Amino acid sequence: MTELLNAPTYTDEAQVRASDRAHVFHSWSAQALIDPLPIAGASGSYFWDYSGTRYLDFSSQLVNVNIGYQHPKLVAAIQEQAAKLCTIAPGYANDARSEAARLIAELAPGELNHVFFTNGGAEANENAVRMARIHTGRHKVLAAYRSYHGATAGAIALTGDPRRWASEPGSPGVVRYWGPYLYRSAFHATTEAEECERALQHLRDLIMVEGPKTIAAIVLETVVGTNGILVPPDGYLAGVRQICDEYGIVMIADEVMAGFGRCGEWFAIDHWNVTPDLITFAKGVNSGYVPLGGVIISRAIAETFAHSPFPGGLTYSGHPLACASAVASINIFKEEGIVENARTIGEDVIGPGLRALADKHPSVGEVRGLGMFWGIELVRDRATRQPLVPYNAAGSDTKPMTEVATACKAAGLWPFTHFNRVHVVPPCTISADEAREGIAILDQALEVADKYYTGS
Amino acid sequence: MTELLNAPTYTDEAQVRASDRAHVFHSWSAQALIDPLPIAGASGSYFWDYSGTRYLDFSSQLVNVNIGYQHPKLVAAIQEQAAKLCTIAPGYANDARSEAARLIAELAPGELNHVFFTNGGAEANENAVRMARIHTGRHKVLAAYRSYHGATAGAIALTGDPRRWASEPGSPGVVRYWGPYLYRSAFHATTEAEECERALQHLRDLIMVEGPKTIAAIVLETVVGTNGILVPPDGYLAGVRQICDEYGIVMIADEVMAGFGRCGEWFAIDHWNVTPDLITFAKGVNSGYVPLGGVIISRAIAETFAHSPFPGGLTYSGHPLACASAVASINIFKEEGIVENARTIGEDVIGPGLRALADKHPSVGEVRGLGMFWGIELVRDRATRQPLVPYNAAGSDTKPMTEVATACKAAGLWPFTHFNRVHVVPPCTISADEAREGIAILDQALEVADKYYTGS
Ligand SMILES: Cc1ncc(COP(=O)(O)O)c(C=O)c1O
Ligand SMILES: Cc1ncc(COP(=O)(O)O)c(C=O)c1O
Repeated sequence: MTELLNAPTYTDEAQVRASDRAHVFHSWSAQALIDPLPIAGASGSYFWDYSGTRYLDFSSQLVNVNIGYQHPKLVAAIQEQAAKLCTIAPGYANDARSEAARLIAELAPGELNHVFFTNGGAEANENAVRMARIHTGRHKVLAAYRSYHGATAGAIALTGDPRRWASEPGSPGVVRYWGPYLYRSAFHATTEAEECERALQHLRDLIMVEGPKTIAAIVLETVVGTNGILVPPDGYLAGVRQICDEYGIVMIADEVMAGFGRCGEWFAIDHWNVTPDLITFAKGVNSGYVPLGGVIISRAIAETFAHSPFPGGLTYSGHPLACASAVASINIFKEEGIVENARTIGEDVIGPGLRALADKHPSVGEVRGLGMFWGIELVRDRATRQPLVPYNAAGSDTKPMTEVATACKAAGLWPFTHFNRVHVVPPCTISADEAREGIAILDQALEVADKYYTGS
Repeated sequence: MTELLNAPTYTDEAQVRASDRAHVFHSWSAQALIDPLPIAGASGSYFWDYSGTRYLDFSSQLVNVNIGYQHPKLVAAIQEQAAKLCTIAPGYANDARSEAARLIAELAPGELNHVFFTNGGAEANENAVRMARIHTGRHKVLAAYRSYHGATAGAIALTGDPRRWASEPGSPGVVRYWGPYLYRSAFHATTEAEECERALQHLRDLIMVEGPKTIAAIVLETVVGTNGILVPPDGYLAGVRQICDEYGIVMIADEVMAGFGRCGEWFAIDHWNVTPDLITFAKGVNSGYVPLGGVIISRAIAETFAHSPFPGGLTYSGHPLACASAVASINIFKEEGIVENARTIGEDVIGPGLRALADKHPSVGEVRGLGMFWGIELVRDRATRQPLVPYNAAGSDTKPMTEVATACKAAGLWPFTHFNRVHVVPPCTISADEAREGIAILDQALEVADKYYTGS
């Protein structure tokens, strides 16, 4: 917490708050039960409120501000494009759009050469599934429990977390599978290798009983994000690739959260040298400075729509302002070695720092992650692995986690919490010192969690 | 066509085109059969290509550039907000977001006081339906033939045009009805009053046989856009409102295309003094300078989510850059009387101008519209009303319409064509002289259509 010069006056804050409460309808919330904090500004790894309280951001908002806040070169690029041309319809060619697509295709693995732009992640997944269905002529899609793919009807149907429940019955054709998650194995496995093998066997069994020729796509988050920072065991993604090849199924890697540096590589899937047929992206592509998402498309799938129209679109596909910000962001990432920074700080500071917390705090059941994408799973008992709060806890059940978050905020750290987990997902530009500062605060906050520990 | 100074070089154009063809995957297109025109710049009612050919825009791109291109004050507002704060998650309060919501709620009719922001129109409709279903506890939604509501799974299921076909079977629960369209009446009506009465009777009959207590919402475009600029007869919207009230059905007005000045009012529905329960918007709210859309929510529906969470969201809900551009755009509209301009130029220049074309060109079957939202329906025979090209014409069947469009472009006018119609939908800022310039070009181009006329 640092006092800022030039912090806006309280009058401003009161107006922001009053109009917010009177007129803004917020995502995923009971509108009368929230009290959204007015944010006055942000820079680098920090944001601050109107009282001048500054927070080190271990959330990157919704894990999207990979480049940090208000990067001056990215801001300048947006201002330049705004002066040049803000908007042009998808049917035209445009320099910012062309260059963004070229740069993204260049970064993508294998022959993923075409980019269909959307405004965000949900629309990206919607269109990826549309492509897969038409490319294969099949309807069913395999999607994982413990996943999030967005909130439009098609994307929420793919989603394997409680955010889907209220939107059911929804779009048909989704079959759900369990992905690898050794700490809470659906397959009673005891090693990563066993988890991998059994998760692949489960997929094969499911495909057998569902009918291989009915399945258009397997959708997965390369590294599962909000539902736990679940890093797949080595061999899993290659195994999925092989299953897809065997049965003519399209492999869709949702890298909306895991891509663009978050995992210490341009794409998370680069860790395992696997090439999916479609990659969906958003968030990190331009750190959300302007809404943007998209699908990167294999040559074979693009070919399906060479002479037959792709039946999807949106008014702002390939939006010039959004595309210009992606071009600038990718170039800044290269110039400043931001992907490397995410990898190095992850390996050298965050990974070791969090493992040290695990040694010290009994409530830490597991630490896992890579790059700038880490999760701490909190438990009441290491032996039984009983989570600190139940799955999808609500109301007073969330108390221990709320207390941990409150302790972090009181000490100037903004955490990302979900169910019984704290995710450590700062901007990929974070410095070693900032990372250490945040981990030190977490260290204190975890004492709150330790009080709920009931194991021996 | 005017030669521009400082037109960028052909080298640039070649690069734009090459990267576009190699890497950009375009909406609604067979990728190998298109040749997207590289656009070099735009200002006011004109855009131009790299050869310096300038087009008067009678399309407003996808009917979104209501404020015209590169309005200097709107550009400046985007630049200012970019310098201040580009992005913050939906969970916080933010000055741009608060003010955008306040301004929009102030403009909206009745007690529509809350705004849920999205990135575009499809997401707005998705969330409106989600709200209606939860608010009523019912599942079915009535949606119109000859409509477009977006391309995500939920929005495309609402859509009543051929763009839906390839996405079927899709989200269940949509029941389709016919709206009023006297020129091609589904009800064999011969007057506007009869069309109105019969269209309402049709809705009542449908509700009777579907079961009133199963129906969550009736969705309609206040004035149908892409599917024909279908202006409802007086009394229709009030009639739908009454039916909704009788049966506890939520009335959703999709004003993504018709709203924010397009119809010569802030909201199209203001023409008829009807208050729906939900209004969806996008496009004109900020002319697409930054992707933005949303839902304006009645007090009663907001109340449903006061103590029980709204189960929907998106990373960029209430995006500060997008919201700041909406604030600036609304203020500029007020300062410059843009809504009034749309109404006046529509009434005084475009309406009379197009009706004069109808008198002169036999191929004009009907002219209809209001504000800056006009359609010319082209026919081969005024008696049979056989359309100039068939519904959903493809390939060589589209020839007469393609020729009309080509004639417009050759003379420096960029038209909006759909099936057998030319829509006249320029920026709402257009001047009387520009409107006359465009109508004069249309006058010439319609001679092409007249050649296909076979009536007497
Ligand atoms: C993995 C993943 N996919 C898709 C989405 C949806 O993206 P958006 O919120 O931009 O629609 C998210 C958002 O958190 C995500 O984490
Ligand atoms: C009436 C209407 N609703 C919804 C949409 C979808 O909006 P978007 O393309 O921003 O998703 C459109 C787009 O043309 C529209 O005209």
